Amino acid sequence: MAISVETFFLSPESQGTLQAQIQQMIAEGILSGRFRKGEKLPSSRRLAAHLGVSRITVTLAYTELLANDYLTSRGRSGYFVSDNAPVPPDFTPPEKGEETVDWSRAIGRRFTGGNTLEKPHDWASYRYPFVYGQTDPALFDHSNWRLCALQALGQKDFTALTADYFDQDDPRLVEFIARNTLPRRGIIARPEEILITLGAQNALWIAAQILLTQRRVAAIENPCYYALRDILNQSRCHVAPVDVDKNGMRPGQIPGEADVIFATPSHQCPTTATMPMARRKALLKRARAIDALIVEDDYEFEMSFLDAPTPALKSLDTDGRVIYVGSFSKSLFPGLRLGYLVGSESFIREARALRASVLRHPPGHIQRTAAYFLSLGHYDALIRRIRKALSERRAVMQTAIDENGLRVAGTGVFGGSSFWMQAPDQFDTVETAKHLQSQGVLIEPGHQFFQGPDRPTHFYRLGYSSIAASRIGDGIAKIAQAFDGN
Amino acid sequence: MAISVETFFLSPESQGTLQAQIQQMIAEGILSGRFRKGEKLPSSRRLAAHLGVSRITVTLAYTELLANDYLTSRGRSGYFVSDNAPVPPDFTPPEKGEETVDWSRAIGRRFTGGNTLEKPHDWASYRYPFVYGQTDPALFDHSNWRLCALQALGQKDFTALTADYFDQDDPRLVEFIARNTLPRRGIIARPEEILITLGAQNALWIAAQILLTQRRVAAIENPCYYALRDILNQSRCHVAPVDVDKNGMRPGQIPGEADVIFATPSHQCPTTATMPMARRKALLKRARAIDALIVEDDYEFEMSFLDAPTPALKSLDTDGRVIYVGSFSKSLFPGLRLGYLVGSESFIREARALRASVLRHPPGHIQRTAAYFLSLGHYDALIRRIRKALSERRAVMQTAIDENGLRVAGTGVFGGSSFWMQAPDQFDTVETAKHLQSQGVLIEPGHQFFQGPDRPTHFYRLGYSSIAASRIGDGIAKIAQAFDGN
Repeated sequence: MAISVETFFLSPESQGTLQAQIQQMIAEGILSGRFRKGEKLPSSRRLAAHLGVSRITVTLAYTELLANDYLTSRGRSGYFVSDNAPVPPDFTPPEKGEETVDWSRAIGRRFTGGNTLEKPHDWASYRYPFVYGQTDPALFDHSNWRLCALQALGQKDFTALTADYFDQDDPRLVEFIARNTLPRRGIIARPEEILITLGAQNALWIAAQILLTQRRVAAIENPCYYALRDILNQSRCHVAPVDVDKNGMRPGQIPGEADVIFATPSHQCPTTATMPMARRKALLKRARAIDALIVEDDYEFEMSFLDAPTPALKSLDTDGRVIYVGSFSKSLFPGLRLGYLVGSESFIREARALRASVLRHPPGHIQRTAAYFLSLGHYDALIRRIRKALSERRAVMQTAIDENGLRVAGTGVFGGSSFWMQAPDQFDTVETAKHLQSQGVLIEPGHQFFQGPDRPTHFYRLGYSSIAASRIGDGIAKIAQAFDGN
Repeated sequence: MAISVETFFLSPESQGTLQAQIQQMIAEGILSGRFRKGEKLPSSRRLAAHLGVSRITVTLAYTELLANDYLTSRGRSGYFVSDNAPVPPDFTPPEKGEETVDWSRAIGRRFTGGNTLEKPHDWASYRYPFVYGQTDPALFDHSNWRLCALQALGQKDFTALTADYFDQDDPRLVEFIARNTLPRRGIIARPEEILITLGAQNALWIAAQILLTQRRVAAIENPCYYALRDILNQSRCHVAPVDVDKNGMRPGQIPGEADVIFATPSHQCPTTATMPMARRKALLKRARAIDALIVEDDYEFEMSFLDAPTPALKSLDTDGRVIYVGSFSKSLFPGLRLGYLVGSESFIREARALRASVLRHPPGHIQRTAAYFLSLGHYDALIRRIRKALSERRAVMQTAIDENGLRVAGTGVFGGSSFWMQAPDQFDTVETAKHLQSQGVLIEPGHQFFQGPDRPTHFYRLGYSSIAASRIGDGIAKIAQAFDGN
């Protein structure tokens, strides 16, 4: 039996080359059982005419399917579904009955209900996306990333790509971080003091699991990165919020019972405050006095363009008291999911064992690609380009904010990629954000960063890492209109 | 000042193209502060002569470094370290003092001390690697994986590569699993009932976190996958080992208090037993009677070459009682770290929230590459090739085992990639494995799969997924010699 050419069509949403789309269409037809063994395919000429593609494209797709044993060729009679082609299952799944499991009882621990970011998934299609922490395709060094990924896919790197590392990391990436990345933050660490994680989120989560229990106290900044609070809630420890001022966390307010202090000294999240040296020393002194550890989330340090970055808090630590969290998410892209933990060997050993149990190790290919991208110098070039663009955008932001009379609540000394803003008291920025969204403007309401029952609702964050400078003026004007009480 | 050509050398261990190595050497020299701003590099001719490479290679490396702003060119005077090149840090890290943190107190929860696999990291360099679960470079479809990875790195897929998905998965991969992978196991699931995980390990870990607490009971197979026991120990639940016979787990032995049953019905790990249909139904009946859930780890189902695979246990489940764990680690490669959970929507919702908190989502690039590899039919072609090779190797294994008088303790009905073996009682296979390792033979001692204080020590596992058929005979002979008590 011949398969009618009419059953073939290319979906307008399909991606990939035309050849790949044709191959996929036929493979899926076979896998789903629509095309059966021995059935004849349309000639390449007919299928090409039907789909409106060149004949060679169809021929190449057929040839590939031949090599994969989906099709066989019988000389001039054409192509047929191979006898060796994979068969669809011959067992039919049973009708689904009513589920009888009582999930309210079966679920032992709940994880839903946390603070999730209220950002639409199609944020990139908005005209004025003042969103935070996404990648700007206009800035990313796509071609060199591609080259490094290709290199990491080469035969020589087969083991790095495919092997089960159990609890180990890619030694090349660890070595680069130890020798090149950390020294720029003033940190000297041996490979045994470094663990690669699945992004900074994963690093914070691991640190919390190891250091906190139901009987321990975590001091956090207020406001702070909202996902950290979810992590701490999971560990069931007591949480002590410590207010942040324009210099960051206030050491004197950290309660004596605190076992672990979570801090973002270089760029406080979300206020962007940079902690001055005197306060850093005071923070370390306070930690020593109450024998607490500090988890330093050094996100975004590469985005310092107004002034050179200060050394990390970890660089001042001679006790082994600071655990350092680094990330490539902000500088490369968040979908990469690569971060790292730096701390004393005793701590890293536990972190490694926990990570092995939870996920074994970050995928080898990702680690190796990043190692190449870093060691070939592309990373630094990219960072310089991003800094330059952010610096320009920031200037445009500042001008537009001033001209429109908006109020900045926090500005980092070193740059960064966002402003922390304050609307008049009477506004609930969740409502305003909704209103603005309907006008193509995305802002981030600030309430979720705060802890406690009386969370202020009139703060918001404006990111400028994903909006073109030319759009900023109009976008800020629209925001100003929305906050214009008159 | 000119940088002496003598300071340049190519490390014999370096990987990548010569151009990349030269680029990397210069970039690292600048980043580490050895080469300083304004210093002149050797001419391309001199450096090429010194390194013994072609001049064009050096020129291309210089050109790339020029584009990345590491170097500047001053016409005919040559190349210089750019004024804009990244600078090494000018703050020196403090001398490390004695660490004063008391880690025995600071660590709230310990994760070390679990069952780790005793397999040397350089297993591939052994002559007779009867190891389990690694990838054989001779079988993997490297070129098509590379093509799919390239496609996933294309501009069209930029968002899939870079975006922070928060708690979401790549919709293309989920759709393929729902429409093509699961139906072959007799399972129908909607996308809301599927969660992509960082390998099967991560899937099992997530399920344990959600379903188990200190007050709950998990029934496990004895022997079982050792890493599962570590996962359960972390959740602090009670563990009830249930002995396995040649048909797998015995439903009648599952205690009435069990809340969750962890089972590997299709290929029991490590005995390779396949559970017959009657017992599957009995297992489901028992679970319903005691109102327990079942976590079905369906690893290795693609490796059925002796007979068609039976449908998964999940396909018989009309209650929503079975949570299904799938993986691409055995069929593609373990370093990929991609698996999935299938279960009721209420369960998957919690699993998604937990995953988001722990690691957000598996890297986008990995998900999209797998989606292409699957949907283009390469996966099925690869599975067929692996099955064929494993089938041949298994026959060679069987012959060699018989000829050498070794005793098989468990053989799967459907194939798989290992034999579960039994040595004479007096042997401790940990010792024998050490002895064999010194002769270039790797076997896996079996004690770690067992639960309890009196773990038998005379079992071992022989994997054949990473050893060439031509080596099997000699390897088995050496094993037989080691177990020859006389």
